[in-house]
Amino acid sequence: MALRVAAAHLREAKAAILAANAHDLADAEAAGLGRTATDRLRLDESRIESMASGLETVADLPDPIGIVVADDVRPNGLRVRRVRSPLGVVGVIYENRPNVTSDVAGLCIRSANAAYLRGSSSALRSNQAIVAALRGGIVEAGLPADAISLVEDTSHATAVEFMRLRGIMDVLVPRGGPSLITSMLEHATVPVILDGDGNCHVYVDAAADLDMACAIVVNAKTQRPGVCNAMESLVLHEAIAAAMLDRLVTAMPEVRLLADGRARALHPELERASDEDFGTEFLDLIATVSVVDDLTAAIEHIERFGSGHSEAIVTADPDAARRFLAEVDAAAVLHNASTRFVDGAELGLGAEVGISTQKLHARGPMGLEALTSVRWIIQGEGQTRS
Amino acid sequence: MALRVAAAHLREAKAAILAANAHDLADAEAAGLGRTATDRLRLDESRIESMASGLETVADLPDPIGIVVADDVRPNGLRVRRVRSPLGVVGVIYENRPNVTSDVAGLCIRSANAAYLRGSSSALRSNQAIVAALRGGIVEAGLPADAISLVEDTSHATAVEFMRLRGIMDVLVPRGGPSLITSMLEHATVPVILDGDGNCHVYVDAAADLDMACAIVVNAKTQRPGVCNAMESLVLHEAIAAAMLDRLVTAMPEVRLLADGRARALHPELERASDEDFGTEFLDLIATVSVVDDLTAAIEHIERFGSGHSEAIVTADPDAARRFLAEVDAAAVLHNASTRFVDGAELGLGAEVGISTQKLHARGPMGLEALTSVRWIIQGEGQTRS
Repeated sequence: MALRVAAAHLREAKAAILAANAHDLADAEAAGLGRTATDRLRLDESRIESMASGLETVADLPDPIGIVVADDVRPNGLRVRRVRSPLGVVGVIYENRPNVTSDVAGLCIRSANAAYLRGSSSALRSNQAIVAALRGGIVEAGLPADAISLVEDTSHATAVEFMRLRGIMDVLVPRGGPSLITSMLEHATVPVILDGDGNCHVYVDAAADLDMACAIVVNAKTQRPGVCNAMESLVLHEAIAAAMLDRLVTAMPEVRLLADGRARALHPELERASDEDFGTEFLDLIATVSVVDDLTAAIEHIERFGSGHSEAIVTADPDAARRFLAEVDAAAVLHNASTRFVDGAELGLGAEVGISTQKLHARGPMGLEALTSVRWIIQGEGQTRS
Repeated sequence: MALRVAAAHLREAKAAILAANAHDLADAEAAGLGRTATDRLRLDESRIESMASGLETVADLPDPIGIVVADDVRPNGLRVRRVRSPLGVVGVIYENRPNVTSDVAGLCIRSANAAYLRGSSSALRSNQAIVAALRGGIVEAGLPADAISLVEDTSHATAVEFMRLRGIMDVLVPRGGPSLITSMLEHATVPVILDGDGNCHVYVDAAADLDMACAIVVNAKTQRPGVCNAMESLVLHEAIAAAMLDRLVTAMPEVRLLADGRARALHPELERASDEDFGTEFLDLIATVSVVDDLTAAIEHIERFGSGHSEAIVTADPDAARRFLAEVDAAAVLHNASTRFVDGAELGLGAEVGISTQKLHARGPMGLEALTSVRWIIQGEGQTRS
């Protein structure tokens, strides 16, 4: 199995990968790359081990190719099946976490696709070392080396060329910030699956258990604030708003709460939120708070400001939960659970290529199935159409 | 049920629709529109009846919304389901067949989407009359009129604006020729599903039953040559090439066969095919013919020239069939059946929004399922991530 061999090669190449990464880190520090970005770039023995064991996890997942999703015999005797097939060449543009190189390559190989990778320039040497190890592994297992390819020219011009490889690349997943998304919308001719912003809300309903609500809000906001499934906006039913705010200012004093007028009436010490704040993905220990009349107003607020990523309700009222889960138009909707669970590994996909915030093809965490297409296979005994 | 009421309104509006269509036809004739285009534009009582009964057929299809495609309980007790949901607003740009207006509106309404339609200027009055009838029907059934909307300004500038309604339109299906596709690639910011060309091949293998092969080729080429699932290219194994060509020149004398060197060696009277011919969707009584050494060469020929629409093999050899069906990368692959079956109604979808030749989201005929997305619905009892 190619991914097991690739994992072994990755472990064997540990020293070379760490040396390349040290080189990238030195350049990044010299260039004044920020601390968060530098942290994301940094590899150590345990990160390389988790890349290798991640490949083994993906190798253990059921083969997504060949799955029959529909099987029917038509009145004229034609047997019509729909069968999962590879997409072909999967392109991914991403930022400076080198583990993405290994994760994405693993998912692509497991789904019989070729991975065409363009990481950031700051991680180039790390990515080269990782790709060299992975290619060594898959070649040993009998696959062509170019089933995993890295774009080594990381200039802006090649990124634009990359987005226009229509006919060569079957899908492109951009994992990056708003400027990458804008560039994709302007330039891409290849079909794209956007890995977009997460302006995720938690709505605490009148019928919520406030201990549970407090635990979920604190977890969703503070457990890892820099990721797309962290909560950015809190919406409180007016009946529990005062009690929840009292608890939260104590439970997460490190979080800057930007409040609407009704929340400030309850806690005048909170900063005032602008409309722009309600639409912002802070990726930091900051959140907006707004107080609403009822569930309808909460759903409208989320519809107005949400980014279609992950939206949660905390309530003991099954009707309110049902309505929220049915009506909120997001990739993932949650009842009595932290938005932080919206992640490929947590939801059982093993790993993820990204989290789609568009509606076509795949929504939410994208695992192996998102890297397949479904072909029609039609078998007859000479049927012709009349 | 809204679509049944809409069908009744369509039947009631028959006179108004025929009057509007007569007006469009008079203008089209004055403007010198070609005969095929005029035929496509023309409505009569039976075409209106088949639009109405088409709506009733779609009303009878199972509801695609709410279908649970996966249901799992994670080790932490989270229940994780994936559930089919509407896309939202579905845009379609199409040419001058007014029945598309009714077909697409029906599929959108049945899948709880809004239809945003832009037909051709030549069919504007017909489309206005059809949309007025359909809106009357859905309003009577309690839906908002704007669930079916028609773009009444059919200028090029509004087409470009239409393609850029990101945030308003959730998907756009362009049904049209190469210039529309080029314009989409340049301008669209909305996610697109391409309804592209069909350069469909029939490969007749060494082990084919030649009577069956002849019937399939004649059907695929001549039964309706102007549609995307008609055969454009014939590929013959060298072992049966002479016998097949002898039969075909007799069986379909009305078809102009453009032949490669090996086919011309057998039938020197045939015209020579250029490389461009092999890549052309003729939509006419013309087909290319090439003779190949074996199945591998046939698959390579199809890979080089095919458009990823529908590709057929005729053979009695199960291994050859298996290999062809597995390796040919097209929306639909067929064994011992005419390519003409690749059509939503023939394959059991009831109707179709178009036939996708891209790999993302949907391949081949697109029915109700292609108008849905799959959301994650996650239910917990207060779980937080550690």
